Amino acid sequence: MHFTSDNASGVPRQILDALARANDGFSPGYGAEDGMERLRDRLRLVFEAPQAEVFLVATGTAANALAIATHCPPWGAVYCHRHAHVEEDECGAPEFYTGGSKLVPLEGAHGKIDPAALATRLAGAGAVGVHNVQKGMLTLTNLTEAGTAYSPAETAALAAEAKRHGLPVHLDGARFANALVAQNCTPADLTWRAGVDVLSLGGTKNGLMGVEAVMIFNPESRPDSPWEFQLRRKRGGHLFSKHRYLSAQMEAWLEGDLWRDLARHANLMAARLEAGLATIPGAQLVHPRAGNILFASFPRRAHRALQEAGARYYLWPFDQTLDGALDQPVSCRLVASWSTTEADVDRFLERLAG
Amino acid sequence: MHFTSDNASGVPRQILDALARANDGFSPGYGAEDGMERLRDRLRLVFEAPQAEVFLVATGTAANALAIATHCPPWGAVYCHRHAHVEEDECGAPEFYTGGSKLVPLEGAHGKIDPAALATRLAGAGAVGVHNVQKGMLTLTNLTEAGTAYSPAETAALAAEAKRHGLPVHLDGARFANALVAQNCTPADLTWRAGVDVLSLGGTKNGLMGVEAVMIFNPESRPDSPWEFQLRRKRGGHLFSKHRYLSAQMEAWLEGDLWRDLARHANLMAARLEAGLATIPGAQLVHPRAGNILFASFPRRAHRALQEAGARYYLWPFDQTLDGALDQPVSCRLVASWSTTEADVDRFLERLAG
Amino acid sequence: MHFTSDNASGVPRQILDALARANDGFSPGYGAEDGMERLRDRLRLVFEAPQAEVFLVATGTAANALAIATHCPPWGAVYCHRHAHVEEDECGAPEFYTGGSKLVPLEGAHGKIDPAALATRLAGAGAVGVHNVQKGMLTLTNLTEAGTAYSPAETAALAAEAKRHGLPVHLDGARFANALVAQNCTPADLTWRAGVDVLSLGGTKNGLMGVEAVMIFNPESRPDSPWEFQLRRKRGGHLFSKHRYLSAQMEAWLEGDLWRDLARHANLMAARLEAGLATIPGAQLVHPRAGNILFASFPRRAHRALQEAGARYYLWPFDQTLDGALDQPVSCRLVASWSTTEADVDRFLERLAG
Amino acid sequence: MHFTSDNASGVPRQILDALARANDGFSPGYGAEDGMERLRDRLRLVFEAPQAEVFLVATGTAANALAIATHCPPWGAVYCHRHAHVEEDECGAPEFYTGGSKLVPLEGAHGKIDPAALATRLAGAGAVGVHNVQKGMLTLTNLTEAGTAYSPAETAALAAEAKRHGLPVHLDGARFANALVAQNCTPADLTWRAGVDVLSLGGTKNGLMGVEAVMIFNPESRPDSPWEFQLRRKRGGHLFSKHRYLSAQMEAWLEGDLWRDLARHANLMAARLEAGLATIPGAQLVHPRAGNILFASFPRRAHRALQEAGARYYLWPFDQTLDGALDQPVSCRLVASWSTTEADVDRFLERLAG
Repeated sequence: MHFTSDNASGVPRQILDALARANDGFSPGYGAEDGMERLRDRLRLVFEAPQAEVFLVATGTAANALAIATHCPPWGAVYCHRHAHVEEDECGAPEFYTGGSKLVPLEGAHGKIDPAALATRLAGAGAVGVHNVQKGMLTLTNLTEAGTAYSPAETAALAAEAKRHGLPVHLDGARFANALVAQNCTPADLTWRAGVDVLSLGGTKNGLMGVEAVMIFNPESRPDSPWEFQLRRKRGGHLFSKHRYLSAQMEAWLEGDLWRDLARHANLMAARLEAGLATIPGAQLVHPRAGNILFASFPRRAHRALQEAGARYYLWPFDQTLDGALDQPVSCRLVASWSTTEADVDRFLERLAG
Repeated sequence: MHFTSDNASGVPRQILDALARANDGFSPGYGAEDGMERLRDRLRLVFEAPQAEVFLVATGTAANALAIATHCPPWGAVYCHRHAHVEEDECGAPEFYTGGSKLVPLEGAHGKIDPAALATRLAGAGAVGVHNVQKGMLTLTNLTEAGTAYSPAETAALAAEAKRHGLPVHLDGARFANALVAQNCTPADLTWRAGVDVLSLGGTKNGLMGVEAVMIFNPESRPDSPWEFQLRRKRGGHLFSKHRYLSAQMEAWLEGDLWRDLARHANLMAARLEAGLATIPGAQLVHPRAGNILFASFPRRAHRALQEAGARYYLWPFDQTLDGALDQPVSCRLVASWSTTEADVDRFLERLAG
Repeated sequence: MHFTSDNASGVPRQILDALARANDGFSPGYGAEDGMERLRDRLRLVFEAPQAEVFLVATGTAANALAIATHCPPWGAVYCHRHAHVEEDECGAPEFYTGGSKLVPLEGAHGKIDPAALATRLAGAGAVGVHNVQKGMLTLTNLTEAGTAYSPAETAALAAEAKRHGLPVHLDGARFANALVAQNCTPADLTWRAGVDVLSLGGTKNGLMGVEAVMIFNPESRPDSPWEFQLRRKRGGHLFSKHRYLSAQMEAWLEGDLWRDLARHANLMAARLEAGLATIPGAQLVHPRAGNILFASFPRRAHRALQEAGARYYLWPFDQTLDGALDQPVSCRLVASWSTTEADVDRFLERLAG
Repeated sequence: MHFTSDNASGVPRQILDALARANDGFSPGYGAEDGMERLRDRLRLVFEAPQAEVFLVATGTAANALAIATHCPPWGAVYCHRHAHVEEDECGAPEFYTGGSKLVPLEGAHGKIDPAALATRLAGAGAVGVHNVQKGMLTLTNLTEAGTAYSPAETAALAAEAKRHGLPVHLDGARFANALVAQNCTPADLTWRAGVDVLSLGGTKNGLMGVEAVMIFNPESRPDSPWEFQLRRKRGGHLFSKHRYLSAQMEAWLEGDLWRDLARHANLMAARLEAGLATIPGAQLVHPRAGNILFASFPRRAHRALQEAGARYYLWPFDQTLDGALDQPVSCRLVASWSTTEADVDRFLERLAG
């Protein structure tokens, strides 16, 4: 009954096997291995983006911060949701990598930026010339931190507003696979076709040990970006000498659509949780669920029972307490992963039902 | 009828005379001139702070950014009002000087931070350890950007909340003199006695050409601060070789309480504006006035008449338009300075009255 | 015949096995896994440093840059050998992480800082107060970039000079294991007992996929360092969510002294190369060899024959050419690793002998 | 007998008068005053550069650091003389403003970069792709720190080498006027016609209180530079609200060629010193003199006599001592300024002659 985070799960057998295969003999490093060539080709195919540049790093924070720093100057404002991971959970990594840009938190229900809030903010930005930070870029997250998903159309609407002001668009896709399989669309639909210029494609939360790809979809529109990205990556200490272990993992992850299967399973387990919750009096969703994350509230009594039974998950927000009126609702975050089992979910629901 | 800003005014005769006197002969530079010694002593006396360290720079942005960077690490959150100058008008200077800290904008009516908003934000900060930016420092502005003033008690309440969390407190005093003479208190009451650790004492908006003092009141509590400040100042390009022209101006400014006289006059002229407005139908204050800044609204018809008569001031917020229904109210900012005349004020009021 | 770098090698079976073991089930992340606790204890034991703080990252550049930034302010000079990895091969990572410090390259034969050069430079530093960058820290590399090793006494002499000026000492130990087994001393002798405050302990070049430990030996002397290191690590994007895969690798590496066995083998293979070279007319060492790296020169004719036979290694310096007089010497770098075989070495020597 | 630095001198009457004139009435700030328009036109005329962009700051360090940061990325190498002011006397300001670039000190006699040293360094730069800092820009100083001057031809040769590698060229002209009047050439000859892209034109050392102009000669070749410069200036705290006091000073300085007259006088006084020294046994020049700075050595006995007579100048290098054998030579730096008098020079020479 481990629902703290999808990054608490391990990796499937296929990934261990890929590491063993990649381990054989000597290999050039720093991304010059054959496997990186194959991975790049495969990602271009999957995203229908033959021009895309692809770079690997090992953490989501690195992917986001490097992608943002490559597309936004130090004096640029980075528009994001007020609960975005880049705003709340990266200890200022974007500010560090950009050299001091300003993240501008925007409102919006259920983790999704309100298009009107973005439009208003952009309309008022830069009114006093050099005295303000300048309009820099837009960054979205899909799945959002509230577990909801932007549709291709919603993504396109926000991206279009950014582009009206000449801004590039970044997508933090730490849970991109979960967002993708939750909807009837292609990877291209959810990214470049909707106006996304650069994607952090997360592998770690979906079955890898620590691999994220940064995809720059239209390098021709900013010809310096790919080289600048590589310099920033090296300078940030994120270029791996034994790079083959990164590319091998992600190659195996794409093989036979494993990545979608893993995400589909995680989403399914979350759906099972959701379905179960719907039948339990006093339990309810805090945000509508799209993928593998669920925000739910139920009486403190049930929380305590679950904790005693060994269930692991975070209260959300963190500052709630388990000491208090037993019939009052407390809210939590439940994250399913590729390795969550039906049995685990059912056991959780049983306990919750009391 | 020039009410755009107090920095559109010149300097009084005494300042020009002081420059001429300081000009004589050769002098050591970089703050080693005799005049700096005298100024330091004088400021310590005026602020009843015999231990205070005093450093000069030429712009308010430099004073604020250097003061903040010396007291807040790169991963620190700088709590400020959402309309603070450091947040809205310095093109990210604090972020640049700190190496990428995060300014956290807080709500509060009339430009003053709501103590509850600060307490709530601090209570929730740092909940997830290393993943968040850490609690860094508090920065207040007095006069505020809305033209209101924090009293010693209000300052102390906010500072105490910050100190409960171990945070240093900075005061942006670009218009400190105006805040001071508006209240029945001493410089010490409004700063260190209320918990302010470091002050940007503004001279430029109150009759100097470009001189601001940074006062560190309790260097013994952070013994590295003064030296660190000096290194940051040099490294930021803000250490003047011909430093005597800065110290001479500020020395003359303190002489015979000139600085308070200048501020008192500016406040008086704003009070005269306020009094006049009160008699004009359709005109009203947007914020209560404390010093030399006034936010007022009156019908668009009156605005247009004033503009045609050559009155200079900013619409506030900037994105209002003078094209539109003539009887609808438009709001503006009016700033009086040491050189504003009664005649100017009266002419303005006449035009406004129509 | 692959001698380009020890990071072109794979990892031994034990490491793959450790990953498989660590993969089981759910685990807390970010260093909170049980394995990290065990690893920390083990490293403290191995280094006889019960107070040491231990943190993991995945690249040597990250380890060095974070260690330096935690111990040197932005205005500090970082004294290093002119061919140090931090100076020549990290694209400015130390400058980036420190916020713009200055690396001061020092002379010294065979990759080792000349103690007199360090003393002279330190004696002259900071003469003009705030105008200069300040004395910041000393960073050594062992094995050096020339393949030589500092002895405990040599390390201690340089560290003592630094400490005379109050400076902390960092050791870039990307090939620390090779330096260690090359000498009759303990890990403690070569680090904290000789005055090293913080160590980058390299695993990647000696049989891991990408794991480096940063050890802060005397956290009590700078009590803020460990927490600051962790914030910088997170902010730099170097904190792994699935941290168990890092700690598991390094735990297995220490198990049964595997790390020393791997390094010993690599050194032995380099010694075999050296012995062979000594018997070949026209071949000679450029630097005395201590560990697993060898700098040698031999006629261009031999280089060409080796290349044709498929031998892989770098000309050193890079800007030499294989086009030219066949009997003229060209110099190269040959690196042996834990996976280099006697057969490979012998084949290389045969070809070289012609 | 004050020869420590030209920045120990005051300003001529004309500058005080200009301040008094500029003081009249209200004025727009931040460079929008009429005087800035006139100054810009005048500088374009003087430099025969009708497209040049002109911006003012108050210190030489700010001018240099902002000019460099606008033309060199964080991962760029800034090639400079090893004794350049940017390398030795700005506490790392260029590193701070660029976000961590690396200054690469080059050799060269008498303060002038050896063209061969530059060519060699550039030829070897960037050999290992992303692992190295990249070739960034060239910065020259004229007058140099050794008091010598680059001729237009020498400037052009170095600039051409830089441009062969696609690098922009900056000129630190803290004493540009002195270099100019020392040679039979025009401002254009010594700057853009010789390949200089951006100039720090120093006023402070030549009769102003603290005014430096940054001139970008060919903004069309990097169309973003001027706007980027302005953002960096604001963000660095170097944009003056009461900007009129800067532009007024520099306008008066150019008026009637005052700037050249001041520099010519300073150079003349240094020439007088030089001529006198030539007649004194035991005294000799350390570097050939071009402008207003003189490096000379003479017996310690004479130094002590001069000090006792109240002469003020720096031993150069700083770490020499006045305690020691009286007949041994000690070296010093003597700087003449616009306000140095013949009487002062002669008195100095008399004392020196004994």
